Amino acid sequence: MNGQGSDVADWWTTSIIDMRPGQIRFRGHPVEDLIGQVSFPQMIWLMTRGELPSVEQARLLECALVAAVDHGPQAPSIATARMAVTCGLGLNGAMASAVNMLDDVHGGAGEQAVELFNWIDQAVAGGLSLEEATARMVDRWQTERTVFVPGFGHRFHKPEDPRAPRLLGLVDEAAKAGVVSGRYAGIGRALQLLLNERKGKPVPMNIDGATAVIYAELGFEGPLARGLFCLSRSVGVMSHAWEQMQQGGRNKGPTPPAYRWSYDGPNPIGE
Amino acid sequence: MNGQGSDVADWWTTSIIDMRPGQIRFRGHPVEDLIGQVSFPQMIWLMTRGELPSVEQARLLECALVAAVDHGPQAPSIATARMAVTCGLGLNGAMASAVNMLDDVHGGAGEQAVELFNWIDQAVAGGLSLEEATARMVDRWQTERTVFVPGFGHRFHKPEDPRAPRLLGLVDEAAKAGVVSGRYAGIGRALQLLLNERKGKPVPMNIDGATAVIYAELGFEGPLARGLFCLSRSVGVMSHAWEQMQQGGRNKGPTPPAYRWSYDGPNPIGE
Amino acid sequence: MNGQGSDVADWWTTSIIDMRPGQIRFRGHPVEDLIGQVSFPQMIWLMTRGELPSVEQARLLECALVAAVDHGPQAPSIATARMAVTCGLGLNGAMASAVNMLDDVHGGAGEQAVELFNWIDQAVAGGLSLEEATARMVDRWQTERTVFVPGFGHRFHKPEDPRAPRLLGLVDEAAKAGVVSGRYAGIGRALQLLLNERKGKPVPMNIDGATAVIYAELGFEGPLARGLFCLSRSVGVMSHAWEQMQQGGRNKGPTPPAYRWSYDGPNPIGE
Amino acid sequence: MNGQGSDVADWWTTSIIDMRPGQIRFRGHPVEDLIGQVSFPQMIWLMTRGELPSVEQARLLECALVAAVDHGPQAPSIATARMAVTCGLGLNGAMASAVNMLDDVHGGAGEQAVELFNWIDQAVAGGLSLEEATARMVDRWQTERTVFVPGFGHRFHKPEDPRAPRLLGLVDEAAKAGVVSGRYAGIGRALQLLLNERKGKPVPMNIDGATAVIYAELGFEGPLARGLFCLSRSVGVMSHAWEQMQQGGRNKGPTPPAYRWSYDGPNPIGE
Repeated sequence: MNGQGSDVADWWTTSIIDMRPGQIRFRGHPVEDLIGQVSFPQMIWLMTRGELPSVEQARLLECALVAAVDHGPQAPSIATARMAVTCGLGLNGAMASAVNMLDDVHGGAGEQAVELFNWIDQAVAGGLSLEEATARMVDRWQTERTVFVPGFGHRFHKPEDPRAPRLLGLVDEAAKAGVVSGRYAGIGRALQLLLNERKGKPVPMNIDGATAVIYAELGFEGPLARGLFCLSRSVGVMSHAWEQMQQGGRNKGPTPPAYRWSYDGPNPIGE
Repeated sequence: MNGQGSDVADWWTTSIIDMRPGQIRFRGHPVEDLIGQVSFPQMIWLMTRGELPSVEQARLLECALVAAVDHGPQAPSIATARMAVTCGLGLNGAMASAVNMLDDVHGGAGEQAVELFNWIDQAVAGGLSLEEATARMVDRWQTERTVFVPGFGHRFHKPEDPRAPRLLGLVDEAAKAGVVSGRYAGIGRALQLLLNERKGKPVPMNIDGATAVIYAELGFEGPLARGLFCLSRSVGVMSHAWEQMQQGGRNKGPTPPAYRWSYDGPNPIGE
Repeated sequence: MNGQGSDVADWWTTSIIDMRPGQIRFRGHPVEDLIGQVSFPQMIWLMTRGELPSVEQARLLECALVAAVDHGPQAPSIATARMAVTCGLGLNGAMASAVNMLDDVHGGAGEQAVELFNWIDQAVAGGLSLEEATARMVDRWQTERTVFVPGFGHRFHKPEDPRAPRLLGLVDEAAKAGVVSGRYAGIGRALQLLLNERKGKPVPMNIDGATAVIYAELGFEGPLARGLFCLSRSVGVMSHAWEQMQQGGRNKGPTPPAYRWSYDGPNPIGE
Repeated sequence: MNGQGSDVADWWTTSIIDMRPGQIRFRGHPVEDLIGQVSFPQMIWLMTRGELPSVEQARLLECALVAAVDHGPQAPSIATARMAVTCGLGLNGAMASAVNMLDDVHGGAGEQAVELFNWIDQAVAGGLSLEEATARMVDRWQTERTVFVPGFGHRFHKPEDPRAPRLLGLVDEAAKAGVVSGRYAGIGRALQLLLNERKGKPVPMNIDGATAVIYAELGFEGPLARGLFCLSRSVGVMSHAWEQMQQGGRNKGPTPPAYRWSYDGPNPIGE
């Protein structure tokens, strides 16, 4: 007897995977039927949501996954991965350390943006105009949550994040083809107009905002927007960790060794 | 001045990504040219290796990525992710905790298999027959490294891991079409024969062995085999973490609360 | 020039540590004056708060650190550490994986309890009786935060967690000796009375509640209560990881291999 | 029935902790007898090794724990913790991310030094003079392992690491008092002489070497030297993470935002 049906087996109940010796099924599909038949983005969708998407839905998801892989060594996630390798960690440890960084501030904007978009969508469904819904929900967000409107604004990419218009254009195409409704692209643009107006200058939609439009269009819930970002960013993390491995280095700190930090505590060491 | 060209900038030198305000290039390709044009597996290849693969190469990579996403809640990586969620972590923390588990024992077999395959490949290039090269290199592996031959044997899937023959079949097709050489599929099969014979029973090629054949055929170095497995398994990890989030639960331990562990130390508490 | 005083140095400003070749000062104290002179708990206090505590204050802190080291292999933190070792991680990786688990649910109760205690303390300072303040702040907590009152209730230890009365007794002694005020012990007991009464059965103060009394008495802020718990629990984590290392095992899952999980998804594999 | 004695209970067998409702014993000692009676270092020893140390042994352990808490924001572990906080992680996540960094290169020197010291100790036990044993085992280390002799040399602290002579002095005192044998202090000094001579300049014993002398004197095995370092460094990590939390900041990268990294790949973006 293999313990199935027992209290121990039930403690780990799942509807994702079933197994017997020589057999594996994901969401009911034999693994050998999936391999070679579905794309990696289709597999990601199947695993997280339980059903296979159409090829067109998966293609739009793929655009978001491609767009967010990396933002360079000054991103804390990437820096962490590179430092990790020089501390002796393998790629698994480097990737884990880096993905751990993608918490609320560094990795949560997409999740928050999906949530804000859904507030606006529901307000429109409740009868408000898009403009009115957008203005009210931004006010609500800034009152209940934080002054930061998720998915907009960039310290570096001004006046425009090059990924956002490209991704929105692909959503428009998908909407025209009937793959998605296009409602969230409209919400994203309404937010863009509102924020530009309120700030009196461009507050560019960033990668979190643009991918959140795609995730929301495709029906992913907020937490999965964060998970999918983690998956996408893992590609850049792995690439930088691997490059660092080839560059060598031991115990690489954040700044070159000749630099010291500034000390502002008591009893400093004199020259 | 933005610090470029300084010792601080040089401390973080990379050939992966270049940025200016409004512009991002990966390996020299503007991001907006990649989004919507390349598949996620192509992007993974470009980021890790510097050049875009052909569509056919990327498709074979995709098969490996699809195949390894999950092995159920008894895999320490998946169990960790599910427990993490009930401890309060978001998907990033759950995914990080799980990927951290994919160290030498849980996640290193693919990396090791690529290395062993390359030993055999070089021995063949040096003039040995495939059978002779395989036998000698397995002996060397077991002497220099460990008794475990990476990529073969499975506690559960007997006599065959359903993923292996399917993946090898796809390598054969790719070899016939000239996408890969097929040399590593041959090495994998030679290992299979040798191990079956030595053990006197089937020692099935497992998922690490089968994906290692693909990674080696495509020219990925060993450490990236581990990294790619981490990326693939992240999909299952995310899916299980998300399922657990929806199931609820707080501080989920490995076994149901009614169970206790066995204590074999001094001065046990009496009934 | 060593980069001190530059924008790069200022980016990493700290008042904790100063260094020059051959010299290290923590919070202004030369390291060689601390080694052998201060206890580990005194050092923990100095590092986190900037000043050395008295021996008596440090002793009370030490009691809390001793009390929370471990809660057995069914705690997700401990289970994770043990599984990690069998996946190939060293003690650093096992400890990291385990401490990561100590998030809001598994490790946040102490932090939350300190916060709730401070609400009550301030309400008393504002003129309410202790009973009234306790009742009102519990109501507020359950309205604004969560139904779970942090620091009280235990799935396993009923009717009493053996650590709580021992720790409270030590706080009483310290209060009598003038080391602490004893106000938070009073708050803890008022909470205990209120919860017992409301539930109609004992809702025992647990380890998080009892250590939070100590941390609050000693003036530690909430987030440090969580950090100190992480430090304390690291001892048990290290011990279990090391024991597992000696026991051996590879890829230890949460339950014995003969068990399977229950599958409740579509298209199950037939017998 | 509580599952004790079953295969599930046996899967998690431990000799560290026993529990029943209202009772907890660590290594056979009721928790309420330990709290307030043993120091935190004594508890660390009891948990990892199964027996309570003498007060004097625990004091020497305490010196090593105090000495290694921090090495400033340029240490990858500390930098990671500070960056983590600005990404949204709590202290548990920051501590986990930092401790994960203490792998073979950043955190493994103590473990390796204990091993090398034991090689030398056994060679002396086998009849070699201390000088001869030291020379031969350094040769063996550099042949079998790596050119780096663990525990010696420092990029920054020259000609002396201020922690090493202080710690060795305390070992001498403990040896004189009969607490330890002093053999490993002798081995450490023999290594120091040999390396100075071979290099023709001071190769100072560093913190890993000095604490390894203490750990070896006290009978800790190599892997625990790494674990104890992780525990000690967790104090500095927590302190820096907490300081960063108070300083604020979002997504703090390794260098100030005005800096960029250098790009040395194809097709750079022109000015």
